[in-house]
Amino acid sequence: MIVKTKKILINSELECASGEALENFELMTDFYGELNKKKDNAVLVCHAFSGSHHAAGKRDGNIGWWDEFIGPDKTIDTNRFYVVSVNNLGSCFGSSGPLSKDKNGERFNNNFPQLEVIDWVESQKMLADKLGIKKWHLVIGGSLGGMQSLQWAVSYPKMVKKVGILAAAAKTSSQNIALNEVEREVIRKDSDFHDGKYLEFNKSPVKGLKAARMLGHITYLSAKNMDQRFGRKLQNTDSKIAEDIDFEIENYLQYKGGKFAESFDANSYILLTKVMDKFDIAHGYDDSLESALENIRAEVLVVSFTSDWMFPTSNGKEICLASIKANKKCSYIELEGEHGHDSFLYPNEDYQNAIKNFIESR
Amino acid sequence: MIVKTKKILINSELECASGEALENFELMTDFYGELNKKKDNAVLVCHAFSGSHHAAGKRDGNIGWWDEFIGPDKTIDTNRFYVVSVNNLGSCFGSSGPLSKDKNGERFNNNFPQLEVIDWVESQKMLADKLGIKKWHLVIGGSLGGMQSLQWAVSYPKMVKKVGILAAAAKTSSQNIALNEVEREVIRKDSDFHDGKYLEFNKSPVKGLKAARMLGHITYLSAKNMDQRFGRKLQNTDSKIAEDIDFEIENYLQYKGGKFAESFDANSYILLTKVMDKFDIAHGYDDSLESALENIRAEVLVVSFTSDWMFPTSNGKEICLASIKANKKCSYIELEGEHGHDSFLYPNEDYQNAIKNFIESR
Repeated sequence: MIVKTKKILINSELECASGEALENFELMTDFYGELNKKKDNAVLVCHAFSGSHHAAGKRDGNIGWWDEFIGPDKTIDTNRFYVVSVNNLGSCFGSSGPLSKDKNGERFNNNFPQLEVIDWVESQKMLADKLGIKKWHLVIGGSLGGMQSLQWAVSYPKMVKKVGILAAAAKTSSQNIALNEVEREVIRKDSDFHDGKYLEFNKSPVKGLKAARMLGHITYLSAKNMDQRFGRKLQNTDSKIAEDIDFEIENYLQYKGGKFAESFDANSYILLTKVMDKFDIAHGYDDSLESALENIRAEVLVVSFTSDWMFPTSNGKEICLASIKANKKCSYIELEGEHGHDSFLYPNEDYQNAIKNFIESR
Repeated sequence: MIVKTKKILINSELECASGEALENFELMTDFYGELNKKKDNAVLVCHAFSGSHHAAGKRDGNIGWWDEFIGPDKTIDTNRFYVVSVNNLGSCFGSSGPLSKDKNGERFNNNFPQLEVIDWVESQKMLADKLGIKKWHLVIGGSLGGMQSLQWAVSYPKMVKKVGILAAAAKTSSQNIALNEVEREVIRKDSDFHDGKYLEFNKSPVKGLKAARMLGHITYLSAKNMDQRFGRKLQNTDSKIAEDIDFEIENYLQYKGGKFAESFDANSYILLTKVMDKFDIAHGYDDSLESALENIRAEVLVVSFTSDWMFPTSNGKEICLASIKANKKCSYIELEGEHGHDSFLYPNEDYQNAIKNFIESR
């Protein structure tokens, strides 16, 4: 598989939904496979909250987040398709975001414009123009990436042939927002946060980031999966990684949270949770989901998982029912998933067949 | 209604399940109604995690947590029954706990013995002996109070005529423990926590406590209830109580968390979440719930709420099925509840009738 990673400068202004603007911006992007002559085999893969452009292949010891789905003869067959995977604006893996510098050469820190999902679509539209891609064969993603895919199909209907919306929703719920607010709260109140200017003090609010991720991680798993995997098993005394731990699940979360806090930027964390909170595809359509989806020209695939409590199956059904009311071609698939919300990341025969058939159907 | 509040000294040693001991201890206790001559009309009401002895009536502007259920002609009719409500050991509303002094006159702080639910039952058994109550007509409680009620029926079968277990479980799940660990983590990592010795510095880790309660509060509500009550409504700019708030639900949690942090003790918070984590009634019975429940002589009422995701209905069913297998008299009632886990606190005709009929039946 041909793999390329490029940081691409888009030298045009991006006017954000908030009214703020970026004079120009960079998008860190992975490319898997080859664009054909007709340029009609491009697939845009959209990552979730804390993901990155690195969707496939091994790099610096890390495996891409959808490696089992992208590659030669895999679900998205790179012998046939040209996969584009963009690190979202505002994130911290190479695209413009809080870690970047503004036009005066100052680091943005907490002053990066607050983005919305539609801004990501705009930025990727500008990238598609630069790449000469007039129509995506497929735009697909899970969670926040699924919301992004849906926004693509609504905002640029002529540019999306098929859209795959996995473990996502047409809008975030009050509970989603509430949990995100707790995560932001623990970051902001970390004494090393310094009102978002922590890098000027050579600090990072790692304690807050760690706790935020511990909570986030619980929302990505299911209660059943946690009971099966950890249950009430006690942690070995030798391998406790923090004081006051009794159970394995505590140790696991401490470990996962700590690892994450070493590599993620706190201002990005806050910004990206706000992007999620603000997502409501029906906003601007008199709160009518059906009206919002009327724009769509793409074939729609919606997948929900019964073990997902972050975006439960009612969210997926809602999108599909509104699509059908709006006279769109939509398939809805409900799978149990063993991993709660995270199920969209894991290989499973039914799941992969559904996506593969959807992509490869005429 | 006759109401009395007393701090009762139990001047005997309490040997805790952990092996640690308290030389003596105090229990802050409310009494509603009158004990009859036969002393057979006593009802023990057990509070949940952050509750107190103050279950009924208005005091200092606060209404008791089960005021709609306890009183003359109410669900638990104080014309007939004598209600005893004890602040649990380790809590911070007057009973011995981290705020108390040890035998050397030093404040316990984080050195109060780590308790288990069975220790609460032991302490209340000693109280019952002191009060001359040989058998409770009923022991009842919700959430952690329901676990305590179950433990009473198992530990002192001859002392419990009826037991009511509301919105509770026979053991905490991996997800329960995980969420509690996040709550503890944000308290411990507050820079004002000082390894639990914060009072020696005239501090309290209010930032951590606030965030912990914000998370706890989300677990007490249901996603549906939050959507109905707050949905995606934006907060008025005038009444934002913290920076960076967009939605009403964020403001609500900030407010609730902040209020709680003013009145609760952080060491108690940590200790009490650990009590919850450690609860598994089948522990010591080869992990067989049926074996554990074989001791019971009481009639059992179990109530679960379909909107409760902290202790879902499967938890209630599990207790009732095991009771029936163990040849006990058990009724199980499943109600929707509008308030998620907190539904056990709210008046509802079916719910109150079920409890009233259970109490008053021969």
